[in-house]
Amino acid sequence: MRLSSYFLPTLKETPAEAQITSHILMLRAGMVRQGAAGIYSWLPLGLRVLKKIENIVREEQNRAGAQEILMPTIQSSDLWQESGRYEDYGKEMLRIEDRHGRAMLFGPTNEEMITDIFRREVKSYRDLPLNLYHIQWKFRDEVRPRFGVMRGREFLMKDAYSFDLSAEDGVKSYNAMFVSYLRTFARLGLKAIPMRADTGPIGGDLSHEFIILANTGESEVFYDPAFETMDPMVDAGTAKDDLQPTVDAWTAPYAATEEMHDATLAPDNLITGRGIEVGHIFFFGDKYSAPMGATVQGPDGKPVAVQMGSYGVGVSRLVGGIIEACHDENGIVWPEPVAPFKVGLINLSAKDQSVTDACDKLYSDLDSAGIEVLYDDRNERAGAKFANMDLIGLPWQIALGKRGFEKGMVELKNRKTGERWDVSLDDIVSQMKG
Amino acid sequence: MRLSSYFLPTLKETPAEAQITSHILMLRAGMVRQGAAGIYSWLPLGLRVLKKIENIVREEQNRAGAQEILMPTIQSSDLWQESGRYEDYGKEMLRIEDRHGRAMLFGPTNEEMITDIFRREVKSYRDLPLNLYHIQWKFRDEVRPRFGVMRGREFLMKDAYSFDLSAEDGVKSYNAMFVSYLRTFARLGLKAIPMRADTGPIGGDLSHEFIILANTGESEVFYDPAFETMDPMVDAGTAKDDLQPTVDAWTAPYAATEEMHDATLAPDNLITGRGIEVGHIFFFGDKYSAPMGATVQGPDGKPVAVQMGSYGVGVSRLVGGIIEACHDENGIVWPEPVAPFKVGLINLSAKDQSVTDACDKLYSDLDSAGIEVLYDDRNERAGAKFANMDLIGLPWQIALGKRGFEKGMVELKNRKTGERWDVSLDDIVSQMKG
Repeated sequence: MRLSSYFLPTLKETPAEAQITSHILMLRAGMVRQGAAGIYSWLPLGLRVLKKIENIVREEQNRAGAQEILMPTIQSSDLWQESGRYEDYGKEMLRIEDRHGRAMLFGPTNEEMITDIFRREVKSYRDLPLNLYHIQWKFRDEVRPRFGVMRGREFLMKDAYSFDLSAEDGVKSYNAMFVSYLRTFARLGLKAIPMRADTGPIGGDLSHEFIILANTGESEVFYDPAFETMDPMVDAGTAKDDLQPTVDAWTAPYAATEEMHDATLAPDNLITGRGIEVGHIFFFGDKYSAPMGATVQGPDGKPVAVQMGSYGVGVSRLVGGIIEACHDENGIVWPEPVAPFKVGLINLSAKDQSVTDACDKLYSDLDSAGIEVLYDDRNERAGAKFANMDLIGLPWQIALGKRGFEKGMVELKNRKTGERWDVSLDDIVSQMKG
Repeated sequence: MRLSSYFLPTLKETPAEAQITSHILMLRAGMVRQGAAGIYSWLPLGLRVLKKIENIVREEQNRAGAQEILMPTIQSSDLWQESGRYEDYGKEMLRIEDRHGRAMLFGPTNEEMITDIFRREVKSYRDLPLNLYHIQWKFRDEVRPRFGVMRGREFLMKDAYSFDLSAEDGVKSYNAMFVSYLRTFARLGLKAIPMRADTGPIGGDLSHEFIILANTGESEVFYDPAFETMDPMVDAGTAKDDLQPTVDAWTAPYAATEEMHDATLAPDNLITGRGIEVGHIFFFGDKYSAPMGATVQGPDGKPVAVQMGSYGVGVSRLVGGIIEACHDENGIVWPEPVAPFKVGLINLSAKDQSVTDACDKLYSDLDSAGIEVLYDDRNERAGAKFANMDLIGLPWQIALGKRGFEKGMVELKNRKTGERWDVSLDDIVSQMKG
């Protein structure tokens, strides 16, 4: 992509509307713009990141055996009356009346709707286990939306729902999602720690939050140093039956958010840090299946209310969360798997035809090699171009100017470490491919 | 994907709620289920088709130089007051009041919102031309939603918006989308004919609908036989400046929907058929930019209201549209580019271990070769399996039973032509790859 024609409205100044780092940087880097309070439009650079996160989440859900569906944003209130949550949910639920006066709502979550789909279609224990997920926009009408996409009103969430015949099998499904989340966050370039959690309005008594560490995180967290050296890339080939030891290993060391922390029970030598919740999983048995009649015929022919769990990842929230965890004083520092482009190519001498020709060729070669590259072909000062590239945080910067061109060399910079070195113009494409 | 664990609730009977072919077949093939009137959940098979269509639409938008963004579903009413359309839109607009009593709405289209983004970020003619698109769920509160996803209330639409300095440039952007649409529908396996159209509530005086031909289409269409032999895969390398001859060639032969047809003006020997609208493009100049103050500084330093167009494709509607165009008495006949899987593999002797082993291996080999395959590994009658595969309409069926296994042969069937022939078990994977 050539920056001269790319819709990337970056800002030099810190916008007044933003308080926290990720919000400031997402506005400055031209990733999002607010439409109404807590409701954002994703501009091209921001959308690229959102899609990369979404795809990694999707791949790991599929790997764990969950099947993707897509439920609508607008739901009828009937199902919520059945489950008993219609009144409970309060003002956070965006209630809507359609032209015929029917009570509708913009889904804040989908336990009711998925339970309804399940009960209409699945009749026998032979069709279990089943795990269905979707990645869809939700709406929660927060009193005071703030912190950009970290606490918006319209947000993108992946929510999965598991159905099992017995509580024992239900816990196996819960464990599969637990392990899948460890992999998901690691692939996003994040260190996530599972912490025992309250279940709130979702219900049930088994629940974990996944908290990523970030100095600027929203809440204080306390955790065992053992987490620092544990490998979250759990072998996905492991059968569901054998995951309990992995879950045990990840839940044995102490880890708690401020809310759940009990200093009298906690071991000494804990690390105190700050964290951001990016995932939350629940096992709630028959809380929805019993009132809503989601039963299957068991092996003995009798109806059994299925055992359910639900599993959420805040996909749009993660964009902010990753920035909170990955930035420096100059801007964003994207982990490579979610970077909007891998490489930023800077033409330092846009007025010089031979340098421009060399940059154009390099751009085309990188592109042909399948490397995602954003090419700053604008006629701007070098300093402004470097500052802009640092701000948007692509993992690699390649700069080519008159002096380098005469030597046949580009300057390569690693955004994260700040290291720079010269690389031959002939070698740079293959080096970037590796 | 193994059918034994795939969430594919197919139906043998025709559901009472459906009148038209695509609606009946989408319910029978387990692609969608209705949540509330005109609001659908997409089950795994349906979502795969929806995503394939979405991706082809996206690729062709990108190829035409449009840039992807994502606007939210919920909008503030303020912008619609500014454009003057808030009252005009009537009861089709789903109006919502948030917890603070602010008037919001579920976007039925995005001219206002994109114009607002543009006017906040783009200041100079040097940043033009610009074309921004998104693929997002919309809501139109139809009085009588019907025909499944063909006339639903919540629907997925691709809408692009072009911004130019002059009307002349605006028409070039319009032409680029016109040509891009020809390619898009051809890639989806459809014959689409552009027809001059009314502009309705969008406005402007240049507009075309893209109508696909289907015997069961919603409206009568009249068109010149010349369309039958024209090649819609217009060379995408053609510069925007040079597209007028292509657009002229595609608009010169007579083509009109019932609504616009004038028998006194139409030439003889027209083909009369039925069609479905799947795309609609508009050039409306400064209809939104003038009242909303979307101006750029022109080359002479003076502010100019930009010239705009908008370009819609009904992505979810296309799923129904393709089925209307591509089915027979046994079910759906997917064009390969949008088929949920390329191949259906049928184990005809699921109780026989050696046949099952051979099927398992073939499934694994096809999968490793990157071929999307749905494997009917269930313990069901052969007749039911064949009927089910015909219903869901995968382009190729591979059947392996005891007799074939002993000869080392599978039976390959082309769903569209109905042709069947024997292929050696050793050759089938490479044949499917080709």
